[in-house]
Amino acid sequence: MQKPPISRYPIPDINTLPEDIRTRILQVQEKAGFIPNVFLAFTHRPAEFRAFFDYHDALMEKDSGLSLAEREMIVVATSGANDCQYCVVAHGAVLRIRARNPLIADQVAINYRKADISPRERAMLEFALKVCLRAQEITEEDYQALYPHGFSDEDIWDIAAITSFFGLSNRMVNFMSMRANDEFYLMGRLPKGAN
Amino acid sequence: MQKPPISRYPIPDINTLPEDIRTRILQVQEKAGFIPNVFLAFTHRPAEFRAFFDYHDALMEKDSGLSLAEREMIVVATSGANDCQYCVVAHGAVLRIRARNPLIADQVAINYRKADISPRERAMLEFALKVCLRAQEITEEDYQALYPHGFSDEDIWDIAAITSFFGLSNRMVNFMSMRANDEFYLMGRLPKGAN
Amino acid sequence: MQKPPISRYPIPDINTLPEDIRTRILQVQEKAGFIPNVFLAFTHRPAEFRAFFDYHDALMEKDSGLSLAEREMIVVATSGANDCQYCVVAHGAVLRIRARNPLIADQVAINYRKADISPRERAMLEFALKVCLRAQEITEEDYQALYPHGFSDEDIWDIAAITSFFGLSNRMVNFMSMRANDEFYLMGRLPKGAN
Amino acid sequence: MQKPPISRYPIPDINTLPEDIRTRILQVQEKAGFIPNVFLAFTHRPAEFRAFFDYHDALMEKDSGLSLAEREMIVVATSGANDCQYCVVAHGAVLRIRARNPLIADQVAINYRKADISPRERAMLEFALKVCLRAQEITEEDYQALYPHGFSDEDIWDIAAITSFFGLSNRMVNFMSMRANDEFYLMGRLPKGAN
Amino acid sequence: MQKPPISRYPIPDINTLPEDIRTRILQVQEKAGFIPNVFLAFTHRPAEFRAFFDYHDALMEKDSGLSLAEREMIVVATSGANDCQYCVVAHGAVLRIRARNPLIADQVAINYRKADISPRERAMLEFALKVCLRAQEITEEDYQALYPHGFSDEDIWDIAAITSFFGLSNRMVNFMSMRANDEFYLMGRLPKGAN
Amino acid sequence: MQKPPISRYPIPDINTLPEDIRTRILQVQEKAGFIPNVFLAFTHRPAEFRAFFDYHDALMEKDSGLSLAEREMIVVATSGANDCQYCVVAHGAVLRIRARNPLIADQVAINYRKADISPRERAMLEFALKVCLRAQEITEEDYQALYPHGFSDEDIWDIAAITSFFGLSNRMVNFMSMRANDEFYLMGRLPKGAN
Repeated sequence: MQKPPISRYPIPDINTLPEDIRTRILQVQEKAGFIPNVFLAFTHRPAEFRAFFDYHDALMEKDSGLSLAEREMIVVATSGANDCQYCVVAHGAVLRIRARNPLIADQVAINYRKADISPRERAMLEFALKVCLRAQEITEEDYQALYPHGFSDEDIWDIAAITSFFGLSNRMVNFMSMRANDEFYLMGRLPKGAN
Repeated sequence: MQKPPISRYPIPDINTLPEDIRTRILQVQEKAGFIPNVFLAFTHRPAEFRAFFDYHDALMEKDSGLSLAEREMIVVATSGANDCQYCVVAHGAVLRIRARNPLIADQVAINYRKADISPRERAMLEFALKVCLRAQEITEEDYQALYPHGFSDEDIWDIAAITSFFGLSNRMVNFMSMRANDEFYLMGRLPKGAN
Repeated sequence: MQKPPISRYPIPDINTLPEDIRTRILQVQEKAGFIPNVFLAFTHRPAEFRAFFDYHDALMEKDSGLSLAEREMIVVATSGANDCQYCVVAHGAVLRIRARNPLIADQVAINYRKADISPRERAMLEFALKVCLRAQEITEEDYQALYPHGFSDEDIWDIAAITSFFGLSNRMVNFMSMRANDEFYLMGRLPKGAN
Repeated sequence: MQKPPISRYPIPDINTLPEDIRTRILQVQEKAGFIPNVFLAFTHRPAEFRAFFDYHDALMEKDSGLSLAEREMIVVATSGANDCQYCVVAHGAVLRIRARNPLIADQVAINYRKADISPRERAMLEFALKVCLRAQEITEEDYQALYPHGFSDEDIWDIAAITSFFGLSNRMVNFMSMRANDEFYLMGRLPKGAN
Repeated sequence: MQKPPISRYPIPDINTLPEDIRTRILQVQEKAGFIPNVFLAFTHRPAEFRAFFDYHDALMEKDSGLSLAEREMIVVATSGANDCQYCVVAHGAVLRIRARNPLIADQVAINYRKADISPRERAMLEFALKVCLRAQEITEEDYQALYPHGFSDEDIWDIAAITSFFGLSNRMVNFMSMRANDEFYLMGRLPKGAN
Repeated sequence: MQKPPISRYPIPDINTLPEDIRTRILQVQEKAGFIPNVFLAFTHRPAEFRAFFDYHDALMEKDSGLSLAEREMIVVATSGANDCQYCVVAHGAVLRIRARNPLIADQVAINYRKADISPRERAMLEFALKVCLRAQEITEEDYQALYPHGFSDEDIWDIAAITSFFGLSNRMVNFMSMRANDEFYLMGRLPKGAN
C-alpha cells in the first residue's frame, strides 16, 4: 500500500514559507533529526501556524511545577481519550524519552488507571481527563483533590491548559487526517545507545 | 447574592500588564464599550494571552468563505454542546448583531436542528458538531456532504479550526469558571436605536 | 427566510375550538398579552390539551414548598438538558420575571453548575437532572442529599413531578417542532418600566 | 424478605379519597380483578391523579390508527429503554393479552430488534425509541421513514405522545420506587382457560 | 407470522454431530425436557461448542461462595444491560427456579436497583455491572466495597468471570440472532405442582 | 517504583500445576522465549485456564478465511476500544509480526479509521467494533456491508467470535489488573535481524 499523505491539505514547499516559519521548522529539524509532520501540516495556514506553536511553547517549554514528563503524560492520556493517532504516537515518543521509561507511553495511552504511575500522577490525569471529556462538570471539589498531591493553583492551570490545547490539536489532527512520522514509533523504546 | 468573581484565578491590575496586552485590551474596550472578561481572565498568563488572541484573530477576523455570522454560529452551536456559559452568552450577542437577528443565538445554542437556518448553515453545523464531539470519526463522507452547499476545502478548514479553537476556549472557561459580562446578555436583542 | 409554522401539525381556528379550551386560551392571552404557542399547538388534540394543562397547573400553580422561581428553574435546567427550544425560551422568560434576575435563565439553561444560584438551588437541580436523565438510578441517597437543604418529601415530589412533566413537554415540542413565540426572547431582560 | 411498600410515599385509605377518584379506582378493580398500584400511588396527589389518568385515557383508550396491541408495544419498548419495572411488567401483561402472544412482551422489552414483529411495528418502535431517547434529533426524515408503512401524521402523533406520556410515567415510577402488582407477572402467559 | 429460525447460521442434524457433543446435548435434554437453543446454535462450530460449555460449567456448576441463585442473578442483570434476549429469558427461568421466586428475574433484568434483593446481592450486582460496562475503571475501591458483604477474593473472581463469560455469550447471541426456546418464558412462574 | 505484580491474584508455582497446564505453558515458553503473563494469571483457576485457551485456539489457530494478521487486527482494535492494556500490548506485538508492519498496531489501537488499512480491513473492523460495543444493534444490513468485501458467513462468524472472546479477555484483564510482559512492547518494531 502506498503511504498516505501527511495531511488531507496541501503542504507548501518549505522554501516558499515566510522566513520565521521556515526558521522555526529548520530549528526543530536540527534538534530532532527530522521534521515532525505537525509543523508541515500547519504551514498551510501561516497565521494559525504561529499561534499554534506559540501556544504550544507557552505551555510545554516554560518552567512549571509540572515536570516535563508529567506534561507529556497529560498529552498522551488525553490524546488517547480523543483517539488522536498523531499526538499519541509523537508525544508517546517524547514521554518515553522524558520519563526514561520505554513502557509508560503505551500504558498511559491505553488505560492510565493500570499504568505504572504514582498517586500524584494519577490524580493529575484524573483531573486532565475530566477537563478533556466533561469540563462543564469541573467543580471546587476537583481542585481540592489535587492540593494534597502538591499541586498549586498554577500547576492546575497548567494541567487544564495543556489538556485544552491538545484537545484543539487532537481535533485538527483527526479533521485533516494528519499522519505521524514513522520515526516516532520507535523513539525511546531502546536502551540508550542501542539506536 | 454577591456577584462571583470573573475567574477563579487572580486578575492583575491592568496598568501592570505588558504594554502590548494593555493596548490590545484598551482597543477592545474602546470598540465594545467594555472589556469582555475573557481578555481580563487570560491576563493571568501573558504568553498564553498572546497566543490565544492571535489564534482567535487568525480565525475570526480574516477574510473567509464563511460569513462573519456563519463563524459566530459555529461558536454558539459548539459552545452550547460544551455547556460553556461565557462563549454562548458572549458570542450569542455577537451572532445576534452579525446576523441582525435577535432570535438566532438562543435557537442555535439550544438546538440548531430547530433553528431558523438555511440548509447550508445546517450542514455546516452538523460538520462542526462532529468535529466538536466525535472528531475521531470524521471521514471523507463528511467532506463530501459539505461540497454541494458551496463550501470549499478552505471553508471546511475554517469550520474545523473555529470549532477546535473554541473547544479549547470552552474547556478553559469551564475550568476557571470564567464569568460572562452582564452586558452581553441584552446585546443585539433590541431593535436598532432602541438601546 | 419565511417564518416557519408554529407546529408541524395544523392549528384549528380558535373560534372552532370547544368552549372550555377557547376560554382557557383567551384567559392566558389576556394575562400575557399574547397566546403562547404551546396553547395553540395542543388544540390539535382537545383531550390531550385538557390533560396537559391540567397537569401543568396542578404542578406549577399550586402552593408548594418550592417558590415559583425555583419551579421555573427546574423547567429551564431540565429543558436545557433535553435541548428543548420552546421550553428554554418560554420558561426562561418566566424565570427571569419570577426571579427578578435578567441573567439567571441563560446561566441555568447552559450550565447550572456555573450559575448564580444558592447551594439549595444547586442541590435541587442536581436531583432534577438525575430524574431527567437517569431516573432509574435514583436511590435513597439522592433523597438524603436534599433534606439538609430544607426540602420535605412533598417538595421532592414536586421536583420530580415538574421534571417528569416537562420531560413529556420537551419530547412533544421536539417531535412537532413547536416554535417559541418571538415575545418570549426579550421578556424579563429589561429593567422594570423599560419595556 | 418482607415485601417492600407500593411506593415510597404514603397511600391514603381509599375511603378517604375524593369521590371521582374512588369511583375510578373501583371501576378499574372491577374490570381487572385488582387495583393496579399506579392508581394507588397517584392518590397521594389527587389533582395529579386526575390529569395523569385523563392523559392516559386520551391516548390509550381512544380510536386510533394504531391498534391496541401496537400502543402497548410502544409502552413496553420505551419503558424497557427507561428501565421502568412497573411499566414493563404491567404493560407487558396487557401487551401479551392484546396481542394474544405470551412471548412478545419479554422480547420487546429486552431488544425489539430481535422480537417477532412486523416491519411496520419495527419502524414504529424505532421512531418511538428516538422520541424516548433523542427527541431533539427528530427530523423530517424520521417522519418519511414511517409513511411507507401506512402511518398517517395522526398515527405518528400517537406514537410520539404515547412515548412522551410514558416517559413521564417511567420517571415518576423510578422516582418513587413504585412497585408492580404481583398479579401482572403471570397475566397473559398461559393459554386461555388455563388460569 | 412464521417462527424465525433458532439462529442465522445452519444447525446440523444432531445425529451427525461428534459423539461427545451429541451426548452432552442429550444429557441436557433429559434433564431439562427440551434442548435449549444455545446448545443447538453452537453445534455449528464443534471446537467452540466444547470450549464454550467447558467455560460455562467451570463457572456455573462448581462449588462457590456464591449461591446458584446469586450466579444466575449476575447473568440476568448483566444480560439485561447487554439487551440479550436469549440470556435474559433462559437464565431468567433458571433464576426463578433457583431462587424459588417467580418475580425476581423480571425485576433484576429491568432494574436491579428496584428489585427485591438484599444489600449483599445489590453490591454484587453493582460490581458485576461495572465489569460488564466499564471494566477499565475497576479499581481497588470496587473490591473494598464487596468485602463487608462477606465476599472473598475468590467470590469476586467468580462475579467477574461470570459477567465476562456471559458478555461473550450476549454478543454471540445478538450477532447470530439466537432465539430463546418458548419453554423458558413460563418456567418458574407457577407455584410448584401447577404446571 | 517497584514493578507491580502480574495479577491481583496469586500465581501458583509452575511445578505445582496440573501436568496438561504445565506442558502447555512450557510449550509456549519454548516458542516465544518467555511466558506471556496471561498464561500465568489464569493458572489460578485450572478449569477456566483450559476453557479459555481452548476457546482461544479454536478461533486463532485454525484455518480461516481471515488471515492471521486480520485476526490480530480485530483483537487490537476491539481491545483498544475496551482500554485493555494487556491485549493491546501483547496482540499489538503479534500483529506487527504477522503483518510485517511495525506501525500498524499503534495505528489500529488508537483509531482504525486513520490506519494504513484496506477497505476490506476497514469494513471488518467496523463490524467488529459494533459487536464489541453495540452487539444488540447488529442487523442484516451489517452482514450485507461485509459480503462485497469477500467475507463469507463463516468469516463473519469468525469476526464476531474473536471480538466476543477478547471482550471476555479484556474484562478479565482489567478486573485483575493483569500486566503485559515487558518483552511485548518492542517485539516487531525493529527490522528483521535487528533485535
